[in-house]
Amino acid sequence: MTEDGMTARIIDGKAYAAGLRGRIGDHVARLQKDHGLTPGLAVVLVGNDPASEVYVRNKGIATKEVGMNSFEFKLPADTSEEDLLAKVRELNADPSVHGILVQFPVPDQISQQKVIDTISPDKDVDGLHPVNAGRLASGLDGLVSCTPLGCLMLIKDVMADIAGKNAVVIGRSNLVGKPVAQLLLKENCTVTIAHSRTADLAKVAASADILVAAVGRAKMVKGDWVKPGAIVIDVGMNRIPAPEKGEGKTRLVGDVDFEAAKEVAGAITPVPGGVGPMTIACLLHNTLIAACRQAGIAAPEGL
Amino acid sequence: MTEDGMTARIIDGKAYAAGLRGRIGDHVARLQKDHGLTPGLAVVLVGNDPASEVYVRNKGIATKEVGMNSFEFKLPADTSEEDLLAKVRELNADPSVHGILVQFPVPDQISQQKVIDTISPDKDVDGLHPVNAGRLASGLDGLVSCTPLGCLMLIKDVMADIAGKNAVVIGRSNLVGKPVAQLLLKENCTVTIAHSRTADLAKVAASADILVAAVGRAKMVKGDWVKPGAIVIDVGMNRIPAPEKGEGKTRLVGDVDFEAAKEVAGAITPVPGGVGPMTIACLLHNTLIAACRQAGIAAPEGL
Repeated sequence: MTEDGMTARIIDGKAYAAGLRGRIGDHVARLQKDHGLTPGLAVVLVGNDPASEVYVRNKGIATKEVGMNSFEFKLPADTSEEDLLAKVRELNADPSVHGILVQFPVPDQISQQKVIDTISPDKDVDGLHPVNAGRLASGLDGLVSCTPLGCLMLIKDVMADIAGKNAVVIGRSNLVGKPVAQLLLKENCTVTIAHSRTADLAKVAASADILVAAVGRAKMVKGDWVKPGAIVIDVGMNRIPAPEKGEGKTRLVGDVDFEAAKEVAGAITPVPGGVGPMTIACLLHNTLIAACRQAGIAAPEGL
Repeated sequence: MTEDGMTARIIDGKAYAAGLRGRIGDHVARLQKDHGLTPGLAVVLVGNDPASEVYVRNKGIATKEVGMNSFEFKLPADTSEEDLLAKVRELNADPSVHGILVQFPVPDQISQQKVIDTISPDKDVDGLHPVNAGRLASGLDGLVSCTPLGCLMLIKDVMADIAGKNAVVIGRSNLVGKPVAQLLLKENCTVTIAHSRTADLAKVAASADILVAAVGRAKMVKGDWVKPGAIVIDVGMNRIPAPEKGEGKTRLVGDVDFEAAKEVAGAITPVPGGVGPMTIACLLHNTLIAACRQAGIAAPEGL
């Protein structure tokens, strides 16, 4: 229960993402009108993993919906590393392509790190290149990976000024935990990065005004780990058995015990429908920013 | 007073740095014998700031003492940015130069960031290039700036395994605070980054098993901010008036109230004589590592 005796505000990531895509679409229309510029996103898929095919299709649809150009490249599963890197270099050099995303995982014969290192940092809309990690760590303008950016947007939608707040990030992956910590630090939070080796995780979590869970363990964060009134952002996407839905069925849960935590938190993201829908919207956000920078046009801020 | 009723162990950075330089010297001798390779460090000084001239001279002496080649370049104060960048590019291309350090600050007509961005990340022994910040943030092998590396070495000399310890870093500069936090995270500490906007800094500091102060404010960290038995690393170098030494005299103090903190801490670095002497030794360490990597020879670990 929160301090005022209410259960938490449920943060609607789906609605926020829809609004963000709308604002991006408006901006794209203005770019076309004022500068004749249409941002372009290239997505490369190697092989035919069904889940990856769905992701890539959804990204393509969302890209076109905001008025951007979508370029899709499907390469066979036995594509050599050199051929994929050559495709990436071709896209680096293509002025109509402002963002490049290679759908991971790639087949075993290809080094994921080499692919990341080959994408031009300025077109790296996934924010994975070490140069972008370094720009973020150094407080320079770069491209920030989509899920961390989505987390920050949802937090700031609940509380615009988070300076001085205690933020605790559970998980230290390059993809989520570490960049979320950097973003919160930039917003002047006091930031603690906790993880599997943390001595008293429950106690550390309970000190957080802002708690971000990004560990990938179903319902690990219990209700009594949450400080009353805290903002809880659940990045987890864990499939667990759901016999109540029928034999062999599963359902998606986060890293937070949502039912218990929502009685304590001030605001909390559900799973699904919280952070998840933000990812594609932030990808489009990054493509827009990248296109503006490459064209030497002031990039929109605070979209 | 520590738990066993003793005052803190005073961490002797000067002695540790001397030992490290000795181990580096041994390794350099072996590299020359086994591979005919002599690591080379190029130091570029623009202008004639007296303090910078002393630093550069000391670096040159220490470089030669461990058997490395020292290349010094003194450019006039009115050197153009383009001329300095051309010099850096020349050193990037020179196979006898494995490490490049441009002494900062540079005169106003030169952008410090452009200089940093121009140094080859593989020769960036100061660890300032965004690629090195990114490699550190991403857990990849890079070059880590010297002061943070020195802090970590002193901490690990007191306690070899710091996994699970609560580490608090006060200060979030790109040069010290942030990289120290990354290094401690890599060692599996639970890491909190605190700063001027932190709500209750005394309380946050007092939760630390390992406390690193890097804010640049004389004696800011009081004795009662220190947890009994904690390891305290003081990166501060602040000049304060010292009328007791005569009119107009000054003395060097850290960010920690040393006299009070040493009664509480388990181990503490003094100022001067703590972190300071580590910087040049770590610069030589980085030059050795860079030379090995550039030559494709296994770099020594845990020097």
